[in-house]
Amino acid sequence: MPAVPRPSGERSTPGTQRTPRTQHGIRQSNLSLVLHTVATEGPLSRADVAGRIGLTRAAVSTLVDELTRAGLLVELGRGRPGTVGRPGSALAIGDRGPAGLGAEIGVDHLAVCAMDLRGRVRVRVEEPLAGRNSEPAPVLTRLAELVRNVAAAAEGEGLRPRGLAVAVPGLVARDSATVVRAPNLGWQGVDAGPALEEALPGVIVSVGNEANFGALAELRLGRGGGSRRDFVHVSAEIGIGAAVVVDGALLRGAQGFAGELGHVPVHPEGLACPCGGRGCLEQYAGEEAVLKAAGLRDGQGIGELRERAGAGEEAVLRALDGAGTALGIALAGVVNLLDPQAVVVGGALAALSPWLLPATVRELTGRVIRPYGEIAVSRVGRDGPLLGAAHSVVQAVLDDPLGRAGSPAGFPV
Amino acid sequence: MPAVPRPSGERSTPGTQRTPRTQHGIRQSNLSLVLHTVATEGPLSRADVAGRIGLTRAAVSTLVDELTRAGLLVELGRGRPGTVGRPGSALAIGDRGPAGLGAEIGVDHLAVCAMDLRGRVRVRVEEPLAGRNSEPAPVLTRLAELVRNVAAAAEGEGLRPRGLAVAVPGLVARDSATVVRAPNLGWQGVDAGPALEEALPGVIVSVGNEANFGALAELRLGRGGGSRRDFVHVSAEIGIGAAVVVDGALLRGAQGFAGELGHVPVHPEGLACPCGGRGCLEQYAGEEAVLKAAGLRDGQGIGELRERAGAGEEAVLRALDGAGTALGIALAGVVNLLDPQAVVVGGALAALSPWLLPATVRELTGRVIRPYGEIAVSRVGRDGPLLGAAHSVVQAVLDDPLGRAGSPAGFPV
Repeated sequence: MPAVPRPSGERSTPGTQRTPRTQHGIRQSNLSLVLHTVATEGPLSRADVAGRIGLTRAAVSTLVDELTRAGLLVELGRGRPGTVGRPGSALAIGDRGPAGLGAEIGVDHLAVCAMDLRGRVRVRVEEPLAGRNSEPAPVLTRLAELVRNVAAAAEGEGLRPRGLAVAVPGLVARDSATVVRAPNLGWQGVDAGPALEEALPGVIVSVGNEANFGALAELRLGRGGGSRRDFVHVSAEIGIGAAVVVDGALLRGAQGFAGELGHVPVHPEGLACPCGGRGCLEQYAGEEAVLKAAGLRDGQGIGELRERAGAGEEAVLRALDGAGTALGIALAGVVNLLDPQAVVVGGALAALSPWLLPATVRELTGRVIRPYGEIAVSRVGRDGPLLGAAHSVVQAVLDDPLGRAGSPAGFPV
Repeated sequence: MPAVPRPSGERSTPGTQRTPRTQHGIRQSNLSLVLHTVATEGPLSRADVAGRIGLTRAAVSTLVDELTRAGLLVELGRGRPGTVGRPGSALAIGDRGPAGLGAEIGVDHLAVCAMDLRGRVRVRVEEPLAGRNSEPAPVLTRLAELVRNVAAAAEGEGLRPRGLAVAVPGLVARDSATVVRAPNLGWQGVDAGPALEEALPGVIVSVGNEANFGALAELRLGRGGGSRRDFVHVSAEIGIGAAVVVDGALLRGAQGFAGELGHVPVHPEGLACPCGGRGCLEQYAGEEAVLKAAGLRDGQGIGELRERAGAGEEAVLRALDGAGTALGIALAGVVNLLDPQAVVVGGALAALSPWLLPATVRELTGRVIRPYGEIAVSRVGRDGPLLGAAHSVVQAVLDDPLGRAGSPAGFPV
């Protein structure tokens, strides 16, 4: 597996950019533009690509030749014969070629997948995990085995994995390597990136927060199909995380710790939280809090809640209304502060949205000082973090197709 | 006054950019790079500039010639004689040339200034205003008169104003023209931009929220001197606004309404707020709330509070501690969500920080789930919105020195 360069993780802003644009940078950017265009709108002829991106047909042909030689594009044969000039064969992303590997370390499962440049999952494995308060080393060793299996299967399909991104339920340092704190796994200061790279020689590994990867999946593979570029994505599981997407880019925070919606105070003098605070959202709307409020045992899960809510069980409906209210109070602050285009609710709680969201909307309506955007339920589903992780590698290939150093790409989160 | 092109207001993100980089774009970007470098670090020789931005000396010379011809740069005479090669004369931003006009419509004053490309205020006028529940038309007419006077005085100094940015205490639509709602002025749906452009033929006018301009002043003229690029700026006046700066750019929100920190709920079942919500921060930490809690009359201001706090008056200290606590609860949510490098407190309340911020820090320490950045007091002072407005025009000139159309520059906010 050839390496994908580690990204800088920084965005550049027009007018504050300190590096002049170079010919090399322009070529890379144009290669990426061609590949992105075919990936999202293909199959297309060379002329169609040229028309869409505003380059000459000659320039596009040169770029296409490079991408074809590198196995990133394939020709499907003659295109529409009626067109003027050299009849163009249709270009497409092939079924073979570079791919991304994604992995998820959940509290109760491990999952790994390989995704091709069109965003299709080509190989996927999953197995149960007793992740709560687990030892990191054996978990990472087992994950590396699964990754090797998936990579081998992907290579059997003609794919060439270009890197691995791993979603974890916790805070990850900006080095995309160290799990600073994953409370539900009981991990603290775990160098997961280096450990996996040691177990998987030659593979560039990036580790990121699951809520961030979930938001990337929503951004790139979700309903908006890339058209929704300013939103807050809520991942409500055992913990409640959020990811803020601004103009199509994830807001990571100065230390990489942005998105801790679960610890926004909703009742400042309320329930004590293991984080040390009081009245945090997680104490009212986290999975455990909701199960407890509904009078269910800890082992009984979201499925049970959903069933009983559907049957109209009073205590369950009250619990979900309370959770939705708390979520609405926290989100009212978020919406007043950030004015997002939409709030998208994903994760386990998404399945409970019919009973949860009416209270959330009620709070938002009463507390947001002007019209606010849409409140939507994610369609990516519980695989969001896994798919987002794999797609972050795919995105890095699309952003820097020939894998030169110095990519400004967003691999990983 | 030649026009500065209206900006798109959008940021581009690497890899999602849909327009290829052109030779024209590169030239504009390099002209801007040279001008920015001299503006922030000058006087510099051509060789110094080349060394700092990574272009050849020949390329820099061509760019410098263009900027000199346009009156944007001046030569100060021979530079250090010991340097190798053609002895370079030192380049600087001149005392004459393009400038920005800034204005502020406050609840109790109007102010206008002209700022040169080095960020120095060269002309400034201010006069009292009975702005509360005022008629927009006469206020805008008077403001246009002040602008004309300041522009004439600036032209007398050899400056050429390139545009006007106006700070208002309210929500401004993304068109940078319409005041959607300014509660303390009693304005709603006021087309301030067009009205001013009609009164000031040939001037491009942009209107923006005062908290946003205050944050821009902190970003570009404040203590960090541009080094602090990820922060939340709190403007605490009669209303409490905030601005979120991410990687040196203002987060505006989908509708342009981001930053309404004053309406983040801190006590969800608490005091009713005119916005329709309950327990909003403004009800506990806004200027009027603090005066009331301290037992002062509405007319008595921040100066009086400061004096009595300094004298150790119990009721005043308690009121400020309460306001600081409420601010800390709201900011705990903000910091957990956004993980900024710093929170900078500006506006009127900044003068009260010795008595306000200890409680804020106490709440943050108890409620933020990991180490957080600095809590700092703004040094830009109450002129922040005025200076930020003027500097937004200056920035537009620095970003697109020769004023071609299609500038990606940030004029105004």
